[in-house]
Amino acid sequence: MAPPAPATRPASRAPLRVALLGVGTVGRAVAEALLADTDRLTARAGRPLKLVAMAARSRRRLDGLGLPPDVVLTDDPTAAATVGGVDVVVEVLGGLEPAGSVVLDGIRAGRAVVTANKHLLAARGSEIEAAALASGTPVRFEAAVGGGTPVLRLLAADLVGMHVERIRGVVNGTTNWILDRMELDGLDGAAALAAAQAAGYAEADPSLDLDGVDAADKLVILSRLAFGVWLRPEEVQRVAPDGPGAGGPGISAVSRADIEAAARRGRRVRLVAEAGRSTDRDRSERGGEAGVEASVLAREVDRDDPLASASGVGNVIVIEGAPHGVVTVSGPGAGGPATAAAVIADLVAIAHGEGSTWDASPLTHRAAEAAPVGAAG
Amino acid sequence: MAPPAPATRPASRAPLRVALLGVGTVGRAVAEALLADTDRLTARAGRPLKLVAMAARSRRRLDGLGLPPDVVLTDDPTAAATVGGVDVVVEVLGGLEPAGSVVLDGIRAGRAVVTANKHLLAARGSEIEAAALASGTPVRFEAAVGGGTPVLRLLAADLVGMHVERIRGVVNGTTNWILDRMELDGLDGAAALAAAQAAGYAEADPSLDLDGVDAADKLVILSRLAFGVWLRPEEVQRVAPDGPGAGGPGISAVSRADIEAAARRGRRVRLVAEAGRSTDRDRSERGGEAGVEASVLAREVDRDDPLASASGVGNVIVIEGAPHGVVTVSGPGAGGPATAAAVIADLVAIAHGEGSTWDASPLTHRAAEAAPVGAAG
Repeated sequence: MAPPAPATRPASRAPLRVALLGVGTVGRAVAEALLADTDRLTARAGRPLKLVAMAARSRRRLDGLGLPPDVVLTDDPTAAATVGGVDVVVEVLGGLEPAGSVVLDGIRAGRAVVTANKHLLAARGSEIEAAALASGTPVRFEAAVGGGTPVLRLLAADLVGMHVERIRGVVNGTTNWILDRMELDGLDGAAALAAAQAAGYAEADPSLDLDGVDAADKLVILSRLAFGVWLRPEEVQRVAPDGPGAGGPGISAVSRADIEAAARRGRRVRLVAEAGRSTDRDRSERGGEAGVEASVLAREVDRDDPLASASGVGNVIVIEGAPHGVVTVSGPGAGGPATAAAVIADLVAIAHGEGSTWDASPLTHRAAEAAPVGAAG
Repeated sequence: MAPPAPATRPASRAPLRVALLGVGTVGRAVAEALLADTDRLTARAGRPLKLVAMAARSRRRLDGLGLPPDVVLTDDPTAAATVGGVDVVVEVLGGLEPAGSVVLDGIRAGRAVVTANKHLLAARGSEIEAAALASGTPVRFEAAVGGGTPVLRLLAADLVGMHVERIRGVVNGTTNWILDRMELDGLDGAAALAAAQAAGYAEADPSLDLDGVDAADKLVILSRLAFGVWLRPEEVQRVAPDGPGAGGPGISAVSRADIEAAARRGRRVRLVAEAGRSTDRDRSERGGEAGVEASVLAREVDRDDPLASASGVGNVIVIEGAPHGVVTVSGPGAGGPATAAAVIADLVAIAHGEGSTWDASPLTHRAAEAAPVGAAG
């Protein structure tokens, strides 16, 4: 018998050179992970993961990191991303710009990209994906949904043999923490929000969390991997006509009375991000062109529903489809080190020669709104 | 700036040619998945997954499959695995032989291997891994633990940034189904076993399940990925000195009285597979050379413990470590189509050029008992 060609391609053992853009909570934790225990990380990645450049708006954020002197430091993300020899751009700046330009420029220059930026992906994912396909470079974003809860590769790759019918998740830790306080400590919404802000679980402007915008961004990303379609964030319903918090987006209108009414029925109120295939004509119309309906709504869930078990800032995602039935994953939805661990997992995947997070879940429907972007940029 | 070399290697678009060995419940479901909806599978794998050879002891097991005429059929696994041009050998024969020879011969011939054979991996995993390292060919085995519950790549790759301290799982569906019947339907052990056999959830000889041997094999595999060590199956404690079912292996000695006593304390009895790093001197001695302690014991668990939520043949695995805290995954622990989906996920990974399931979790400790095997065989 003739021995066939090996199924795997020999991986490079050369260092994977990383430019890290942003030293917020996640960025600083990524830097710490890359600088600590490098032998173990090298063994797991099969090659060194070498931090070669960093962009930081404030040098104070670097205090105590023990940054080696050969790491290029700048306050300009573009400059850090284009340092000669950079293999991977890690974008943890957040926001649409300059993150979007840096990500797209990196892709077009043939660099791999790892991003934790759910808002950018939800807003411009279709364009970013088209650019990545054109340049053949991997784009990974495990940290964009679930924090340290490993759900994206699981959905796209581990469950490649599942026909996903529906995803339901608690994917916003801030609102879940607030709902916990309202239910368990008897606080009203304003007091629970103040407590969340004091504990560092809510921003000074909490509306992106409270109104379900953050969860909707994450649901757009989950839907891309589950259904092969980029929904527009505004296609995600965020205001319920009835039920807890009816009339307001997300949990903004959820009251103590809503939570107590649910408790009397043996149920809990959670902010549920849900997307599913439309099944009948009426739903299909509501589901839009792609046939996928998506919502982020405060809902009553049964106490034995896995979503009821989401505690504090924890995330729970329930994936339903054939032939599996139900697969559930839960873990830490927030926290710098846990979210950084998702970034590290993406870097290790790239070091091993893996492609993009969406590779095993190709687009099945191209949104009419998608702006195609060529490789030439 | 000089554009760097692309981080990914261009993947082949040529068909991935598959030899499928075994047409039991899982093997037949793998064949069905490979023959159905090939366009979708090709899109997800990036190239066709082409069934080119099958080994079946009974032609009757092929009835209704609609096998294309160009698939080589034989009753000899070795003959099927060595058909010219085979890229991947899928071993779902079960048992130690001829599975072990076919797997090792395939690896040494440079073929990729996908196996669902937990017993083979637990018995000869160290030898198989050494052979795979020597020949540079990927070996994947997602279906060996958890059935359709995606836990192995999650543990080795998605959680590559976690320092795993402990794994706890319900990983044997048969015993869980039996414990459910004893608790929920008030059956004694013998009646529950008979019901499981009638429902097709237990073998005629159920001892591998009841005595915890099957769960111990799975725990050996989980421990390899969590702790970088191949435990010997006999290092897994299966007889408890006290507690439910004390004195007998697995759940063999669990009585209705044990289950009722647990219920009075608000708890449930589960067969818990658990492995963790030894923490003190005494435990370290008990943990053996590798510093890992492992057991498969009937235990009382709190009702809010995720393991208590394992229902019927469902599996639940709880992974604990820093910085994540706890990550939990649950799903179908049995069933041909769901387990076949895990085999398909491995084939897709190989089609995308990924390496072995253990790649991101290199060995940290080589067992003294391991018989090193060279590439020459």
